[in-house]
Amino acid sequence: MMRAAVAGASGYAGGELLRLLLAHPEFEIGALTAGASAGSRLGAHQPHLPALAGRTLQETTPEVLAGHDVVFLALPHGRSAAVAEALGDAALVVDCGADFRLADPAAWTAFYGGTHAGTWPYGLPELPGQREVLREARRIAVPGCYPTSVTLALFPAFAAGLAEPDVVVVAASGTSGAGRDPKPHLIGSEVMGSASAYGVGGVHRHTPEMEQNLSRVAGRPVTVSFTPVLAPMSRGILATCTAPAAPGVTAAALREAYAAAVKDEPFLRLLPEGSWPATAMTLGANTAALQVTLDERAGRVVAVIAIDNLTKGTAGGAVQSTNLALGLAEEVGLPLNGVAP
Amino acid sequence: MMRAAVAGASGYAGGELLRLLLAHPEFEIGALTAGASAGSRLGAHQPHLPALAGRTLQETTPEVLAGHDVVFLALPHGRSAAVAEALGDAALVVDCGADFRLADPAAWTAFYGGTHAGTWPYGLPELPGQREVLREARRIAVPGCYPTSVTLALFPAFAAGLAEPDVVVVAASGTSGAGRDPKPHLIGSEVMGSASAYGVGGVHRHTPEMEQNLSRVAGRPVTVSFTPVLAPMSRGILATCTAPAAPGVTAAALREAYAAAVKDEPFLRLLPEGSWPATAMTLGANTAALQVTLDERAGRVVAVIAIDNLTKGTAGGAVQSTNLALGLAEEVGLPLNGVAP
Amino acid sequence: MMRAAVAGASGYAGGELLRLLLAHPEFEIGALTAGASAGSRLGAHQPHLPALAGRTLQETTPEVLAGHDVVFLALPHGRSAAVAEALGDAALVVDCGADFRLADPAAWTAFYGGTHAGTWPYGLPELPGQREVLREARRIAVPGCYPTSVTLALFPAFAAGLAEPDVVVVAASGTSGAGRDPKPHLIGSEVMGSASAYGVGGVHRHTPEMEQNLSRVAGRPVTVSFTPVLAPMSRGILATCTAPAAPGVTAAALREAYAAAVKDEPFLRLLPEGSWPATAMTLGANTAALQVTLDERAGRVVAVIAIDNLTKGTAGGAVQSTNLALGLAEEVGLPLNGVAP
Amino acid sequence: MMRAAVAGASGYAGGELLRLLLAHPEFEIGALTAGASAGSRLGAHQPHLPALAGRTLQETTPEVLAGHDVVFLALPHGRSAAVAEALGDAALVVDCGADFRLADPAAWTAFYGGTHAGTWPYGLPELPGQREVLREARRIAVPGCYPTSVTLALFPAFAAGLAEPDVVVVAASGTSGAGRDPKPHLIGSEVMGSASAYGVGGVHRHTPEMEQNLSRVAGRPVTVSFTPVLAPMSRGILATCTAPAAPGVTAAALREAYAAAVKDEPFLRLLPEGSWPATAMTLGANTAALQVTLDERAGRVVAVIAIDNLTKGTAGGAVQSTNLALGLAEEVGLPLNGVAP
Repeated sequence: MMRAAVAGASGYAGGELLRLLLAHPEFEIGALTAGASAGSRLGAHQPHLPALAGRTLQETTPEVLAGHDVVFLALPHGRSAAVAEALGDAALVVDCGADFRLADPAAWTAFYGGTHAGTWPYGLPELPGQREVLREARRIAVPGCYPTSVTLALFPAFAAGLAEPDVVVVAASGTSGAGRDPKPHLIGSEVMGSASAYGVGGVHRHTPEMEQNLSRVAGRPVTVSFTPVLAPMSRGILATCTAPAAPGVTAAALREAYAAAVKDEPFLRLLPEGSWPATAMTLGANTAALQVTLDERAGRVVAVIAIDNLTKGTAGGAVQSTNLALGLAEEVGLPLNGVAP
Repeated sequence: MMRAAVAGASGYAGGELLRLLLAHPEFEIGALTAGASAGSRLGAHQPHLPALAGRTLQETTPEVLAGHDVVFLALPHGRSAAVAEALGDAALVVDCGADFRLADPAAWTAFYGGTHAGTWPYGLPELPGQREVLREARRIAVPGCYPTSVTLALFPAFAAGLAEPDVVVVAASGTSGAGRDPKPHLIGSEVMGSASAYGVGGVHRHTPEMEQNLSRVAGRPVTVSFTPVLAPMSRGILATCTAPAAPGVTAAALREAYAAAVKDEPFLRLLPEGSWPATAMTLGANTAALQVTLDERAGRVVAVIAIDNLTKGTAGGAVQSTNLALGLAEEVGLPLNGVAP
Repeated sequence: MMRAAVAGASGYAGGELLRLLLAHPEFEIGALTAGASAGSRLGAHQPHLPALAGRTLQETTPEVLAGHDVVFLALPHGRSAAVAEALGDAALVVDCGADFRLADPAAWTAFYGGTHAGTWPYGLPELPGQREVLREARRIAVPGCYPTSVTLALFPAFAAGLAEPDVVVVAASGTSGAGRDPKPHLIGSEVMGSASAYGVGGVHRHTPEMEQNLSRVAGRPVTVSFTPVLAPMSRGILATCTAPAAPGVTAAALREAYAAAVKDEPFLRLLPEGSWPATAMTLGANTAALQVTLDERAGRVVAVIAIDNLTKGTAGGAVQSTNLALGLAEEVGLPLNGVAP
Repeated sequence: MMRAAVAGASGYAGGELLRLLLAHPEFEIGALTAGASAGSRLGAHQPHLPALAGRTLQETTPEVLAGHDVVFLALPHGRSAAVAEALGDAALVVDCGADFRLADPAAWTAFYGGTHAGTWPYGLPELPGQREVLREARRIAVPGCYPTSVTLALFPAFAAGLAEPDVVVVAASGTSGAGRDPKPHLIGSEVMGSASAYGVGGVHRHTPEMEQNLSRVAGRPVTVSFTPVLAPMSRGILATCTAPAAPGVTAAALREAYAAAVKDEPFLRLLPEGSWPATAMTLGANTAALQVTLDERAGRVVAVIAIDNLTKGTAGGAVQSTNLALGLAEEVGLPLNGVAP
């Protein structure tokens, strides 16, 4: 049994990590920490987890987090570096925040401001070549939820040379992606019955991360025009990802490339032809549901993907990479099947 | 390993049974049958269950269902008797339908019409004395979703003699309780953003089942004024259950009785004082979240309960009773923790 | 043309008042005031009202509110008395808050704490005898949204002597009833897909107001066991209201009493027999949709009502009473038809 | 007063037409017809319209529809031609269906199959030059809901030569756009909490209509890659529309072009800079809320628009064009303000 701590256990990412760890046969749950909520019971924040309702949240300090095999960080941006440094090499540190995702310091500064904290092994096992990197890792940067969806939707096309690097993505997300802080535009009365756009025009912080991933697969610079949309649901991302088709590409070639790309992937599911993803297919699961076609009139590859932003998009992805880094089977403890309807 | 068949695998109850059985360490999944959908792939109906997507639905015949340790029936009313008879004693038969829930033939005829098919052991282990009955059972009648919620909310009060038998219940349910048949009033455009009452005035078929259970606990006839409300959500029941307080009852006595009643129950959770149930606490879990208080002005016990209508209210309750009948640990394979937010 | 000011124009009640006043042929809109939002444009708070988007919110002071024929107050509790006093008799003052609803100072202190500010004419024209009171009024206390629904659902039964005074009400409300302050339990991720109870056990502040209204109609003390439920929708109240049937009452007698009670009421609509209210029937309308039946087994009158909590339950009710007090036709400017689906 | 008939009064488009006509000062409502629902009361289908609840639906025949100044058709595809022919020139005929929207018979056949019925004046007054056409019209083809949104979002960019003709659109729509027929994938349990893509890859029937409109404005062929997304809400379209920026285009030039384009438009609202559309801003209103920016990294114009698919997207657009054709003020009777939250 591995012993896991979760820093930031009162938020949505922390809660989902705990839900998954509770069902994982190889983990026992150690310290749970929080910021302002330290001192209160977990049950007050995660009432859906009765198994841990009586546990008390502690302060997020190196002392509290020491002595675990794995430490999951679900902290606000900018906090992870200090915690990781204090923990040293004794623990595998898995950061669900953004601090260590980007390789390019200039991109970091342009989108997040301030100084780049560094780059950790990127926790997306499906990215070609990345599984091997993660097997050696002692630090993992869990991808953002939107970059997870977009990268998984388009890497087969770029890896096979079937798409040109002028990507347009519009992704609808549930509100849990915006976290648990009560902001005026996130209250139920505002979001129910309404879809809205935000972060439009290339300014969303996940944009350079998408470009980093797709450029790596394509072997040349890929730009992404990314528009996020807030949809009236708690969970789920549905990303529509398009790119110009390379000359001569056929729908059959696309389908063949995608089928090959997902063939050995435990959590990528190419839907039967004619069936298109819905986020409900993946609720609570670590599965990505994927479909692709060729728009012959417009000359574009159109790939659509559904994931659960908190599972495959955050906590499930984190556990998947952690499994690899700990030498466990990649899929152990992770739900393949969702909760529907 | 036990081998389980599911008849009615294309519906919501069938889908939830399969989700739970896939995560259950003691079951392997055998035949899957359907009515009009026989011949198609399960993936067309339950796209959230990729583990079984390629399985073909068969006809619901005794031959197909033979040779299993357990046969779960999620069939329209009136179909279960013939199937069970054909299967004989070779299989444990667990009926998620209403056919065998009521002991009183007159109540059956009054609410369902036609002739009463019989009475099977009632699959609510928390009902005092019922766990022992289920350990011997070869037939199980899974309770209705509303009666599960109402019985669990009020049995502690009636068992302790703290409530008078004039019960008023209003329960809000998600739309999955109405099943998968596309009816005009169930389409999304009609139900989203709207709450509506139906089956008002003592005519809902679950009413006599509630009265049967509570009368048994109270040791005298209990009447229930029951109003179901359709709420704009897919899953979940939130039942507000009130009864006149017996003379001299205090809030402390109520709380003590409820604490004692849930103490050894694996799936009943009395919330901390001041906290009230929300259906999101139990989504996808076999847990019932419960709270009780005394309205001193009105002189009534008020108990509120949240369950997932498809899990504890149907498929989870079915598996829980099945575990008992098969001599397994009651809680094995059943999720205690929910999926939230 | 009458000139109307709205104090508290940045909140939900204020926004709905403005929507209705914009469509009202007899009003022009004067000063708009706010608390912390003073100085900002209305369009930042009410983007659904482009007709007023450029208007600037002012401080809520007597000077700003002076010089209007009507001043609508949508302020936090405790603020209305001082504003009204400063305005004197020059303006009709219509308070959407709770300060002046209750006649009994003891009930005020028990439920709201502090000292009772006084009692104003109660703005529910349908309450027998109240229309005449409102025609003379220079001050109006707009009823709470829940008491509006419950009183309208049950006054016909009590006025006709068909119900006993032991009322049980469970009412599902949309989240806009909780206002616009961003509280953790009101964010979309928490409320979507979930129903929850709150204020259980006779402690909700609207309880004594319901009892006051129904006792007045019944001519004897009526107690109400009231449980509010938060439903995953922005608007709407669906209240299920039951009371023991008086001896000898029949379903036909009930229906006849209700038909008579609504006959001349412009905004009460008794649905055809067999049809039950849904909140979607009344969205954005000043209409209450009503149905009643007798539960013969349980011996209870069951009345169900749907209203829009912001329209008939707050701003529409306010304008309706204002119309009367200003000598206008009661229904002028008020929407009878809702927005559906 | 003009006398208006509505054919197809039991559906969603018909219901919205009636809601608007009831509030319109220049119309009285004549015959209401339906298909399978002929003979029943309107109240059984449109319970949110108590003003017409008692009206009986008639058969859709020329005799019933004769004698009106305007006949609105909200019929299934293929039915409008025969009705219009029978009515002759005596009535203005306004078709909410697709039959007469496309000018190109080949496009009709490719997307709808069968033979093109013809082309009527296109009911989008904001399209440059179209207002004049509509003032003379005796037949009006009301645009599709998606083409309305996309055309309004992008015509200012194309009219000013600021965008290149390689458009990518992803539009989230509420479920009412799919109509009232109960289909399995449209029931509430399936759509609540889920976003899904459909009609992907250039096959949605509204695609050639978008291309027709934008090509006309651009003066050269425009292709549109269009992906519709079903969002868990009843009403509303949020369309994200992107096109490559023409060389040298700046954000300021874009904003200037859009401000000029909407300046005299009664129903187009360019939001303040930094504010982005939400469908809740336009619920029940004939208003389109619009914003535009330049994604400098990706070199694309990004315009986002929100409309109510049933109001501006169908019935409101129909009434707006009808006002023009009848010589009335374009905005008379049409709501500018929405219902929120």
